[in-house]
Amino acid sequence: MSEPVGNKVAVLGAGSWGTAFSIVLADAGNEVSIWARREEVAEAINDGHENTDYLPGIELPHAIRSTHDPEEALAGADVVVLAVPSQSLRQNLPTFLPHVQPDAVFVSLMKGVELGTLKRMTEVIEEVGDIRSDRIAVVSGPNLAREIARREPAASVVACADDDVATILQKRMHSQAFRPYTSIDVLGCELGGAYKNVVALCVGMAVGLGFGDNTTASLITRGLAETARLAMRLGANPLTLMGLAGLGDLVATCSSPLSRNRTFGEKLGQGMTVEEIYASTRQVAEGAKSCSSLRALAAKNGVECPIVDSVDEVVQGRMTTSQMMESFIARNPKPEIE
Amino acid sequence: MSEPVGNKVAVLGAGSWGTAFSIVLADAGNEVSIWARREEVAEAINDGHENTDYLPGIELPHAIRSTHDPEEALAGADVVVLAVPSQSLRQNLPTFLPHVQPDAVFVSLMKGVELGTLKRMTEVIEEVGDIRSDRIAVVSGPNLAREIARREPAASVVACADDDVATILQKRMHSQAFRPYTSIDVLGCELGGAYKNVVALCVGMAVGLGFGDNTTASLITRGLAETARLAMRLGANPLTLMGLAGLGDLVATCSSPLSRNRTFGEKLGQGMTVEEIYASTRQVAEGAKSCSSLRALAAKNGVECPIVDSVDEVVQGRMTTSQMMESFIARNPKPEIE
Repeated sequence: MSEPVGNKVAVLGAGSWGTAFSIVLADAGNEVSIWARREEVAEAINDGHENTDYLPGIELPHAIRSTHDPEEALAGADVVVLAVPSQSLRQNLPTFLPHVQPDAVFVSLMKGVELGTLKRMTEVIEEVGDIRSDRIAVVSGPNLAREIARREPAASVVACADDDVATILQKRMHSQAFRPYTSIDVLGCELGGAYKNVVALCVGMAVGLGFGDNTTASLITRGLAETARLAMRLGANPLTLMGLAGLGDLVATCSSPLSRNRTFGEKLGQGMTVEEIYASTRQVAEGAKSCSSLRALAAKNGVECPIVDSVDEVVQGRMTTSQMMESFIARNPKPEIE
Repeated sequence: MSEPVGNKVAVLGAGSWGTAFSIVLADAGNEVSIWARREEVAEAINDGHENTDYLPGIELPHAIRSTHDPEEALAGADVVVLAVPSQSLRQNLPTFLPHVQPDAVFVSLMKGVELGTLKRMTEVIEEVGDIRSDRIAVVSGPNLAREIARREPAASVVACADDDVATILQKRMHSQAFRPYTSIDVLGCELGGAYKNVVALCVGMAVGLGFGDNTTASLITRGLAETARLAMRLGANPLTLMGLAGLGDLVATCSSPLSRNRTFGEKLGQGMTVEEIYASTRQVAEGAKSCSSLRALAAKNGVECPIVDSVDEVVQGRMTTSQMMESFIARNPKPEIE
């Protein structure tokens, strides 16, 4: 394969993680063009070097430009970073694809599983774009956007079926504060990233109900076991789930008051309905969608997943958060490992 | 083997965890006698139903009595719970052993590895007491003492080489709020419990220096990998480390502001010396001792353990907390799984 040789990266999506990752890319020496769905977001970035809507208070490097025009964003970019909401990727791709350079490499920052098709984000890119899987990578790890934007030291995983592509991308995104490790386990990274949002919703519900750190730690432990069970059934490497894109991302997301999914869960635990929460915030909680697709994926593959099942029931309004916690606590004592 | 048939439990050690676990035992229907090293602690428990020194503000059930006399504490007890500081177990045991009932079962709540001998706590009991290993159990899990004392729901692991003994003990400590799972992996539970204190020290140092949740999550991830590496080399089941006594206990201890080891680390990160911290608190941070014994154990078995190495260097005063963090960040990027 031909190596990407340029230094321009297109970041498609101007949410908090797309914008924070643009800072990493700029710090690593790339020229970055962010495509923003709303023109006023692009203008704020170009005029004031700030994403006032999704990353307020952070000054963006001048190597970052933004545009509402996909053609302009993608012109000359040999790396294409996708950072749109998971459930809108399929409808967004046809707008982007005609402008992507031949041989460009795709990088998914998205953490979800598509409703209906039950496909992971790299699978959707592969299918809709007719792109070879060895040119599609995923970046995932304990990377809370606001901490990355503040250039606090962080590690992450860049995974691609082609190890050479992962290594090239590693160089393109390695900055003083951001340390990427390579991997070939795309599936494990993506499953870990999607699942952790659902576990964070569950942890948030427990926190909202007033439970403490013992309960939180137990839910994280059981959540990772569930994630590993499903991911391994689908062919992931168990060590990926024990690593930065599994355990690491899970712990960061579940621990942080900055996490959108945990916050969403907390509001549910405090008694708000899903509709009330949507009405009160612009941010997307990916886990509130992925719980349904992960549940279907687990069912299709015959894997038990009590946390994903219960979170989906709560989000669908068929179970209260208190009933969920009671169902976890009521189980009979037994050997830990069966 | 003969089953324990009584309902009296002796808890030897009146620190915060020994006292909180006594509440679990009383709630589960046992008569509990706590041995306290200092007479005034025993008196406070008997007169005011409160351990004012180590668990202030918590009312103890009346089924809990306390004494300074080992013979009185152990009379009629068919379960003996050991909850003294790890490094003082060997010197304490000869005081207790003459008064232990024949066929009593031992339960270790201690989280450490003995300096010098590099033995785990159950190994010290086995050796000093000439007790068969199938009558010695360990209890370990995400169990912050104060949350347990408040009867917040929690899960834990009770491990014994003899599965029947583990099951009997499970029944003796199963209360409405406390759910014990059985295991036969004593080694895995003990290593997880000892190692997590050192990782919590390390996380505390990072927090004290001002690092955020991404860093914390990365340290937890790397810390669990280190723990699993050593424990598996010694014969533990990797699933134990992925479970409540590994990951669960690690996350609870590293997340909670109630954790003594994390707090100790935070003070180091803020610039206090080990001596200044010891002078300011009565609580023991087990990790500040175990870092040396775990380091020696890892070296003896040819296992790399950068976190334990670095924490030991800091505690010995040979490295600053900033130097420790820099050494973690400076490593070259590489594949995550080698």
